Amino acid sequence: MSNTKHLAQRIQNLQPSAIRELLKHSKMPGVISLAGGIPSSELFDKQGLELATRKVVEENFNDAFQYGLTEGNTELRDQLVELCKARGITTRSDQLLITSGSQQALDLLIRALADEGDVFVVERPTYLATLQILSLTAAKVESVGGDEHGMIVDELEALLKTTRVKGVYLVPTFGNPSGTTLSAERREKLVKLAAEYDFVIIEDDPYGAISFTDRREKTLIQVAKELGHEDHVVYTSTFSKILAPGLRVGWIILPEWMKQKVAIIKQATDLHANSFTQALTAAYLTLGRLDPQIELIREAYKQKCLTLSRLLEEELGEHITFNQPQGGMFLWASFRYDFDTTAWLQKTLEKGVVYVPGEFFFSDHADKRTLRFSYATATDEQLVEAVKRLKAAL
Amino acid sequence: MSNTKHLAQRIQNLQPSAIRELLKHSKMPGVISLAGGIPSSELFDKQGLELATRKVVEENFNDAFQYGLTEGNTELRDQLVELCKARGITTRSDQLLITSGSQQALDLLIRALADEGDVFVVERPTYLATLQILSLTAAKVESVGGDEHGMIVDELEALLKTTRVKGVYLVPTFGNPSGTTLSAERREKLVKLAAEYDFVIIEDDPYGAISFTDRREKTLIQVAKELGHEDHVVYTSTFSKILAPGLRVGWIILPEWMKQKVAIIKQATDLHANSFTQALTAAYLTLGRLDPQIELIREAYKQKCLTLSRLLEEELGEHITFNQPQGGMFLWASFRYDFDTTAWLQKTLEKGVVYVPGEFFFSDHADKRTLRFSYATATDEQLVEAVKRLKAAL
Repeated sequence: MSNTKHLAQRIQNLQPSAIRELLKHSKMPGVISLAGGIPSSELFDKQGLELATRKVVEENFNDAFQYGLTEGNTELRDQLVELCKARGITTRSDQLLITSGSQQALDLLIRALADEGDVFVVERPTYLATLQILSLTAAKVESVGGDEHGMIVDELEALLKTTRVKGVYLVPTFGNPSGTTLSAERREKLVKLAAEYDFVIIEDDPYGAISFTDRREKTLIQVAKELGHEDHVVYTSTFSKILAPGLRVGWIILPEWMKQKVAIIKQATDLHANSFTQALTAAYLTLGRLDPQIELIREAYKQKCLTLSRLLEEELGEHITFNQPQGGMFLWASFRYDFDTTAWLQKTLEKGVVYVPGEFFFSDHADKRTLRFSYATATDEQLVEAVKRLKAAL
Repeated sequence: MSNTKHLAQRIQNLQPSAIRELLKHSKMPGVISLAGGIPSSELFDKQGLELATRKVVEENFNDAFQYGLTEGNTELRDQLVELCKARGITTRSDQLLITSGSQQALDLLIRALADEGDVFVVERPTYLATLQILSLTAAKVESVGGDEHGMIVDELEALLKTTRVKGVYLVPTFGNPSGTTLSAERREKLVKLAAEYDFVIIEDDPYGAISFTDRREKTLIQVAKELGHEDHVVYTSTFSKILAPGLRVGWIILPEWMKQKVAIIKQATDLHANSFTQALTAAYLTLGRLDPQIELIREAYKQKCLTLSRLLEEELGEHITFNQPQGGMFLWASFRYDFDTTAWLQKTLEKGVVYVPGEFFFSDHADKRTLRFSYATATDEQLVEAVKRLKAAL
């Protein structure tokens, strides 16, 4: 078991010296970044966001600049009920709480749930920043392996037989960093385990809408509702990847028993999400432009993903292996042989290309052969050049 | 000593049933609210904020909608160095971290400092939401009394002789809820004690700029710098009271040894403050309109404060007593005889006026005779009517 004290130490050691440096380097002129999970600014709906901004200033000035409700802008929550419906999730506005991006949603949820010694289970690999949040609590972290169908739920079940678990965190659809999607069968089993062993599933869904196909898995929260286990799933999503991250607007769907506790923590944390950008997001949603915008992003990322996959296959296929992503922003790869991608980063940086070494995404049992590429920001030409540079760095 | 578990329980009990209900009632038609610390929307610099918004959309679109630096917008931090200079504080942009309002600043700082069993000292009375934050940690809370010159620092010194203290939290200038300002002599003594007993002072300064006179006390951080004790003070302020709270833009000036830790927590919490409203605030500051805006607010609040003071004196002088505020948004009053202001609230609500009962601002030794009035939002006519209703409720 990885104790969070050690984890905290490790992350604090890694954080400044590696990830933050990496992000600095990724902005150096000439360096192509396949590192950050940053949406392409070129795809922003400039016209729509400008229209929405004007609408806020003209029609909603006082609300946009004044204090607001802790739970969030009422109009925005009403519109989110519809947006969730289109994702196959039935909810009510009083179950929603607006957050400063889904990063804050995770922080609020973990603060609300994690008491000293509580065990939280994450995927191996998992989202780095969730490990950071957990490292700030007195909770313990366990991990469960994943394959091309997402978290190996049988492995979780084995763990549950010996260990009392408080919460399970996962990105079940187009996972970060794995890119994989949890299968329908595993979704049902996971929800049933949550009810049987009385734990909470934190379903983090920033990428679900960015599918490259028309296939959709049911969200875990919807599976839970259908099975009568809705008390065991909390769902969070964000506008960061489908509209603009600078808005810092995300949301949580809370089961009844968590509502008050999370609202109290939200209030203590920062009173409420940004009034201006909540109003802006609500105004944007009235324009009917979000669906076409998501279509644009899906198509653009799909093409970039296909390009990167093809290039990696052609140029580096004898060295690395990966699963073809079906959506999202990330391609998770692994060297076919013993390799240290953290050490390699220094070499690729010299050639002018960066990625995130895989070990950062593990709470334990780090696999140093792995690495994460983001294809969202680079242009086609940059992808070609990036893979050429990676090859040259071998 | 008040254990935070009890405190948490008490606040969670109070929170929904009283404060939140109160805020609901305060928005009921016909009810005049002297409760919330909410700036008057009518004083917002509508033209300036519109200009700044347009400037952001036209000149800074991508930065406003994209992810940003954890520490905050570079241009804004540079401008804040100048703003702090005008407040008599010498600092550098790399010591600044932008937060989602000063509420988040307090949360980040307390999370960074509070380990299990650590003792934090607050004033009696103190800012309610700081008690909420402390109740979410494993720290313990002690309190020190205050008088018309602010926190009684001699009482703190007595406590320090028996108790190891990690941090002291206070609003030294135009305090919330007390309205009082810590004297120059006590400021110097407090800073020296911080160095001698090795604790951190959290200087919360949302109201310092809203002075009704030309008299200025030095900030604690500046006193500390002059005495060579700058490692012992962390300063936070906000644009909420001097520009607009909906922006959710505040800042912290951090001593060197805290910078990395607070940045890591900020990143885990919500990555960074709102990109759009940081850019908006930076754009606003280039317009040269903040100083005249602050003048406007100072003069308006001063007049409202004088009106409320006069009315309370004339109409309720035999029942209540208070110190005349010299700045800020709050008038703290106390009944001259044994009285329960929490119970009284029900009666005043029936007459159509609300305030915040004093007991909410105490971590222990609550004085039920006290109550807090805010004069910032009500019009002159409403203040007259409010005091008439208060009298009728006696």
